[in-house]
Amino acid sequence: MTELPAYRAQIEPAWIDFNGHLRDAFYGLVASFAVDEVMDHLGLDAAYRERTRCTLYTLEEHLNFLHEVKSSDDLSVTTLILNFDAKRIQIGCRFLCSRLGDSVATAEMLLLHVHQGEKPTVAPFPDAVIAKLEAFKVTPDVRAAFVPSSRQIELKRR
Amino acid sequence: MTELPAYRAQIEPAWIDFNGHLRDAFYGLVASFAVDEVMDHLGLDAAYRERTRCTLYTLEEHLNFLHEVKSSDDLSVTTLILNFDAKRIQIGCRFLCSRLGDSVATAEMLLLHVHQGEKPTVAPFPDAVIAKLEAFKVTPDVRAAFVPSSRQIELKRR
Repeated sequence: MTELPAYRAQIEPAWIDFNGHLRDAFYGLVASFAVDEVMDHLGLDAAYRERTRCTLYTLEEHLNFLHEVKSSDDLSVTTLILNFDAKRIQIGCRFLCSRLGDSVATAEMLLLHVHQGEKPTVAPFPDAVIAKLEAFKVTPDVRAAFVPSSRQIELKRR
Repeated sequence: MTELPAYRAQIEPAWIDFNGHLRDAFYGLVASFAVDEVMDHLGLDAAYRERTRCTLYTLEEHLNFLHEVKSSDDLSVTTLILNFDAKRIQIGCRFLCSRLGDSVATAEMLLLHVHQGEKPTVAPFPDAVIAKLEAFKVTPDVRAAFVPSSRQIELKRR
């Protein structure tokens, strides 16, 4: 298992909302930019996309907000390949800021490999991408430690 | 049950990514702005927040992306109060665009009522807000029809 490099975000003033903290949606934007970098590391970069007309579409995303992030905070994202099959990737993101020891948020995404023809159609990954996914895929224990973030949204009695 | 007014978004050019469609994170931004409007309708508006130092924090968000949205599309969001208790709201968003008959995406959020003192602490809703939540809360069948969007992210064999 090889680790993907962390993505470092620069928090923009417009990302802070009336609560004085990072607006929920901008965690999603930072995760989205982090996934762009992951695509480069997997060989799904701009040249690949232009050559093959294949790319990744996001099918689902689950975000969990754990601590407030302020305008003065640094923010970085570590990404984990939790799982994959012939045409899909399940990716996990941990948001970290140095002021707080713990994860400040997590995101999980389900990504689909798509050929952008006249209509977008699902396409299998080429072997070279599968090999990279295999190299980056986390061990089952790392995956198990990440997964509780994706529980269903519901109001349980506490 | 009273319906909340739809939120209408203006898609900005910077929201379109290298895939030629609305970047995943900007569905989240539109949902976030829609929730700001819901807060006004519930009496959790700027005057309330200033007077009480109470506001809503997002705990969790699940997004499902169903159809591609292009720069030329209109985009609106209908919001549903799916459930609530003394201090939390479970809200559902349906993203609609007139070119496509169906929902183009859904979002579900879990929101917590918080008093922003020296440290943020959980606070119960005032009675007037509870009454509005009760008036806007959807019927169980509407809620049941919405809920499948929040399934756990996983790779099932298809």
